[in-house]
Amino acid sequence: MTDSDVPGRIDETKGRLGARGGLQVTLSIDAMGGDRGPATIVAGIARSASKNPHLNFILHGPGDELDKLVRKRKILKDRVDIRDVPGVVRMDEKPSQAMRRADTSMRSAIDAVKDGEAQACVSCGNTGALMATSMIRLRKLDGINRPAIACLWPSRNPQGFNVMLDVGADIRADERDLLQYAMMGASYARNGLNLNVPRVGLLNVGTEEHKGRAELKAAQDLIANASGIGGYEFMGFIEGGDIPGDKVDVIVTDGFTGNVALKTGEGTAKLVGDFLKEAFKATPLSRIAALLALTSLKRLQKRIDPRRVNGGVFLGLRGTVVKSHGSADATGVSAAIKLAYELSASGFSERLAARVASAVASAQNDGTSQPK
Amino acid sequence: MTDSDVPGRIDETKGRLGARGGLQVTLSIDAMGGDRGPATIVAGIARSASKNPHLNFILHGPGDELDKLVRKRKILKDRVDIRDVPGVVRMDEKPSQAMRRADTSMRSAIDAVKDGEAQACVSCGNTGALMATSMIRLRKLDGINRPAIACLWPSRNPQGFNVMLDVGADIRADERDLLQYAMMGASYARNGLNLNVPRVGLLNVGTEEHKGRAELKAAQDLIANASGIGGYEFMGFIEGGDIPGDKVDVIVTDGFTGNVALKTGEGTAKLVGDFLKEAFKATPLSRIAALLALTSLKRLQKRIDPRRVNGGVFLGLRGTVVKSHGSADATGVSAAIKLAYELSASGFSERLAARVASAVASAQNDGTSQPK
Repeated sequence: MTDSDVPGRIDETKGRLGARGGLQVTLSIDAMGGDRGPATIVAGIARSASKNPHLNFILHGPGDELDKLVRKRKILKDRVDIRDVPGVVRMDEKPSQAMRRADTSMRSAIDAVKDGEAQACVSCGNTGALMATSMIRLRKLDGINRPAIACLWPSRNPQGFNVMLDVGADIRADERDLLQYAMMGASYARNGLNLNVPRVGLLNVGTEEHKGRAELKAAQDLIANASGIGGYEFMGFIEGGDIPGDKVDVIVTDGFTGNVALKTGEGTAKLVGDFLKEAFKATPLSRIAALLALTSLKRLQKRIDPRRVNGGVFLGLRGTVVKSHGSADATGVSAAIKLAYELSASGFSERLAARVASAVASAQNDGTSQPK
Repeated sequence: MTDSDVPGRIDETKGRLGARGGLQVTLSIDAMGGDRGPATIVAGIARSASKNPHLNFILHGPGDELDKLVRKRKILKDRVDIRDVPGVVRMDEKPSQAMRRADTSMRSAIDAVKDGEAQACVSCGNTGALMATSMIRLRKLDGINRPAIACLWPSRNPQGFNVMLDVGADIRADERDLLQYAMMGASYARNGLNLNVPRVGLLNVGTEEHKGRAELKAAQDLIANASGIGGYEFMGFIEGGDIPGDKVDVIVTDGFTGNVALKTGEGTAKLVGDFLKEAFKATPLSRIAALLALTSLKRLQKRIDPRRVNGGVFLGLRGTVVKSHGSADATGVSAAIKLAYELSASGFSERLAARVASAVASAQNDGTSQPK
């Protein structure tokens, strides 16, 4: 791996790898369920494999089809173990149904993490089904009520990204869930963005203390009180405009609001980008300008390209699962794989588990209002 | 008025104005409560006055201060009636307290609409206080449970904008409220965006029918059933990415989600715009490119400038109230005034009242599941 989207992360990872003597990481990849089919998934892992010699893969899906796709890529020779699984979870399938089916590529991919064969799982499939299946196969960490999906969001902060959670694991969250999101989000920011004391904000419709829903007012007190044990600084209520801002590093919200905000932000960035392209095609002069500014515009595009931050991380489980966009292309799949690799190499899952366990122990000892 | 942000609206307005022989419109303006103080408000009305000879104003706030500011603007001579009111509603004041105070510029501005002196009210003040005061002074339309704030959102649609509501009147909305939002939003889109049969979408975390909160599933049926009487086409569930898209014209959601989405979209657009500016300053070549592309970039900036669509309209009251951004500059204030003028000139408030009344009557006659 020669580059990193996350400043400060890469040296740490390299250092750890060096100490382990170039330890290999095996990722378990659900080849099915993405909107573009398994060929895109295989193209994505090939791209990652060419950049990172420490990566190996277990690939889950219809054996013959996957075998043909993998054989076409020389870089994947001897680095992919194919598991022949016939079933595919459809995008419109109910999570409660999907999680009961034993023959799916999704379940097989998760089980490889459960059985210790792989360090993390990556899937482009149905989010609800992936979370439901992860919960019954991997199980939740002790002390966690609702696992969450955390995403990275381009921001004005020096680290270039903010963490937001939950962005869609569950449409509900009470004050105790929000407290757990603050703890988990801070841990992710500390390990993933290399911030010693991440600043946490609670998303609301106004920054005044009397505003917002009842559970937000209750959560405000819980999160403020647990800042010491969570290793974060609590900045209070924030608004939607602060999500890409530099006021906080971690945005805590319920999965309904977080999902709407994530998709609204992506849609708006894409709209502005498309309007920009139109503007540069408007006149002959602007077309020349676009040529002159090509490098700068490409830098801008890279900075706001949602594919670069593709990958929602499931937090609160006994194992790492990365959810890639259903519509991800090979670049997007490769970004999700990179994220899964970085989290595996840094031992994030074990660190988060230890942090949650110590919070639970502390709550039992000193009677603070943290959930058990 | 010589230009219009809303295609198709201006001719209709002109036509109506022509038939009325250049009827004057009087707007009631709360001079206080904006982040930038009364000088910015007066600068905004002066800008509007210079563009539109049919506009007159009643200005509410401390008499001496306002008198000095108005005297400096020749264009405002004989067009502004100042009401000396000492009290100002603070941004952090609780709505329940603010609405009880009789001496505020906000209440005085609303009362001028109530008393028929002005056709619409514009305020940059505390949103919650403005809504609470509007509700007790103007009262709700019969058949409306929760009034809503509707905003215009730049979109890929031919009309250039979509309508979203509620963006912050109330943090709660049950299925009947959401139905009323659909009816009111469709009426706004029909009158404000000149769409015969607006397409309405219900904001959710997924487009599959089983996803989302219970009230959203219930609202889906209610809104679908009322499409005939509401004069809209119901497109079902939509996601955050569809807000600036061309799939629907009207986005229905609760005021918590809508407010977060609005501010997230604004924040993201601003982030991309700032990154773009940085990109053009990166190299000497890109600086030359920026000069060449200046006209195109200005066109882009105008297209995504949130000040151009400044103004949330309160729907469901016996009178028109436009809420401008608290941080609006003179351009933003002027945009809110323009919106208030257009709604007044088109008789939108009366049309919406008639639509709601006929929906109530129909529900009583044929026993559909609409609220009484």
